[in-house]
Amino acid sequence: MRITVAVDVMGGDFGPSVTVPAALQVLAEQPDLHLLLVGDEAQIVPLIAFSASTPRARIEIVHTTEFVTMSDKVSVALRNKKQSSMRLAINAVRDGQAQACVSAGNTGALMAIGRFVLKMHAGIDRPAIMTALPTQTGHAHMLDLGANVDSEPHHLLQFAEMGALVAQALDGHDQPRVGLLNIGEEEIKGNDFIKATHELLRASSLNYIGYVEGDGIFHGDADVVVCDGFVGNIALKSSEGVAKMMAAMIKAQINRNWLTKLLGLLAYPIWKGLKQEMDPGRYNGASLVGLTGIVVKSHGSAQIDSFAQALRVAIKEVEKDIPALLARHFSAAEHAKKALLLATESPVEAV
Amino acid sequence: MRITVAVDVMGGDFGPSVTVPAALQVLAEQPDLHLLLVGDEAQIVPLIAFSASTPRARIEIVHTTEFVTMSDKVSVALRNKKQSSMRLAINAVRDGQAQACVSAGNTGALMAIGRFVLKMHAGIDRPAIMTALPTQTGHAHMLDLGANVDSEPHHLLQFAEMGALVAQALDGHDQPRVGLLNIGEEEIKGNDFIKATHELLRASSLNYIGYVEGDGIFHGDADVVVCDGFVGNIALKSSEGVAKMMAAMIKAQINRNWLTKLLGLLAYPIWKGLKQEMDPGRYNGASLVGLTGIVVKSHGSAQIDSFAQALRVAIKEVEKDIPALLARHFSAAEHAKKALLLATESPVEAV
Repeated sequence: MRITVAVDVMGGDFGPSVTVPAALQVLAEQPDLHLLLVGDEAQIVPLIAFSASTPRARIEIVHTTEFVTMSDKVSVALRNKKQSSMRLAINAVRDGQAQACVSAGNTGALMAIGRFVLKMHAGIDRPAIMTALPTQTGHAHMLDLGANVDSEPHHLLQFAEMGALVAQALDGHDQPRVGLLNIGEEEIKGNDFIKATHELLRASSLNYIGYVEGDGIFHGDADVVVCDGFVGNIALKSSEGVAKMMAAMIKAQINRNWLTKLLGLLAYPIWKGLKQEMDPGRYNGASLVGLTGIVVKSHGSAQIDSFAQALRVAIKEVEKDIPALLARHFSAAEHAKKALLLATESPVEAV
Repeated sequence: MRITVAVDVMGGDFGPSVTVPAALQVLAEQPDLHLLLVGDEAQIVPLIAFSASTPRARIEIVHTTEFVTMSDKVSVALRNKKQSSMRLAINAVRDGQAQACVSAGNTGALMAIGRFVLKMHAGIDRPAIMTALPTQTGHAHMLDLGANVDSEPHHLLQFAEMGALVAQALDGHDQPRVGLLNIGEEEIKGNDFIKATHELLRASSLNYIGYVEGDGIFHGDADVVVCDGFVGNIALKSSEGVAKMMAAMIKAQINRNWLTKLLGLLAYPIWKGLKQEMDPGRYNGASLVGLTGIVVKSHGSAQIDSFAQALRVAIKEVEKDIPALLARHFSAAEHAKKALLLATESPVEAV
């Protein structure tokens, strides 16, 4: 199966110096992969030439010198930068030149351009940002992580449906357990928004297991954790903050004195294993689910291995044809809704 | 300075078997401390007798066999359990028999009984749950952690004022940096609630440093982090979940094979240091700020060292006389507000 991924090489904190080597790394792994490298040719060509073994025939460069910066306003990125590497990468997905695109650029701009160029599937009101997270028993998918900050209960129902479909496709789970992120205090359990969402999810055909608390995400209590983007983003970033703090504390403990330094050196196999398990790069690559095409967002600070991981996420979504899956599910739901409306209306019309 | 703390010995997952030894441990440390141990005398007496060196003269037992369970509805705990150990411990604060109380019981019940018995300071609409958290540079205070799930911007302003006063008193900071928890995506930065709160905080006399992201809490970006209780609880629990997961992963890496087991054993000084820094017990003890008396909530699963820490938090708040501090600040603010209202109204009255 020939897969073409468009890479916004100008995005992220390090631009082509990270995105191009990462893309070449994945290209070497996957013989069916073709790349559209979108960005400044003058910066891309030397990076490709640097590696003699690069399969040049599977690379096409889409040259542009315009790009979206991290500080660009979304409106500026959307309206005034129509030749940006981000925009052209998304256009390539719309035009069928690529089946997915990956960017480490400005999230707000990527979301806005993605919505504008690709549109949502019929029946989906808003796209969501979804990612996999490590848990004590494997991994879980969480959404929304910041695309929407004032969601309504029916949006969360859509997120839950999308999340369950994607988890099912990617992990081969038959009935992924869907949980609603909530706080655990009795009586004051959640607000009106949470309670209304809970009822919607209970009435759905999803394998809804009820509330999941913050610590439950990482305990592995659910396969899909659903929440509003504001809360999801805070949970994700707080978790990242703690992980970073713990890593810094381990380092500080090792550097305490010559004995701990020596012991730290000796314990290297433990750190190596831990790093592999915990490496944020291992889970890099958040999907903008709900759009008619695949758009994967990498962490802006991603290094080569980590950006490569975001590319692999995009490839996996192409292989599983996630957009077609979502389109089928939601258009069927839309038909059912319209049929129901028609059925309810027809007696009136008959009068 | 003689300090008396009322301890709800029946609260928490382990009841007297944890709370009594913890209380005795702190009693031995602090010669000025007196304890009211509130709970079942038949369970308390043997635990005290067990330790021969206990300064029996500084302990008073308030006997009751009723207690609030973790699954009790708040309404039941409040209305039907008027002789519960939790209720009597809070009553002791109201009646001046103790300057603070500590409980590891049901948070919702503790909050409701605390509000009902002790009331809030004039000028404070809602109490908040506040705790210290470790950061890369020391610690930060965060509130609200779950007392309120639908806060208004002016509530967050009050939380910020309370948080700054408490941080100033406990840490000796002159102008604690106050941050508002928010998400970092450009343009979609926060919702209307966040933006309105941001303006209120900017207009205040606080040392307000603007938005803090989830990872910024643990990076040490602010001394006081303010948020709605729903979001704060999710952030706190998610962080706990990640820390637990990382601890489990370190353990799994050590147990991988005989070599890693040996190396793990050798590296013991590193773990020991890490455990001391990260120990959740080191930060156990959340304050219900805004009430006219000191109420400290311990984690329900606290072990002896950890519950002792919650007691130390209560003692420190007594020493700094936090309630008087809050009362002074908010009654002055109330007077200023009334004076302003009067000044604005008088011309109308003169007509």
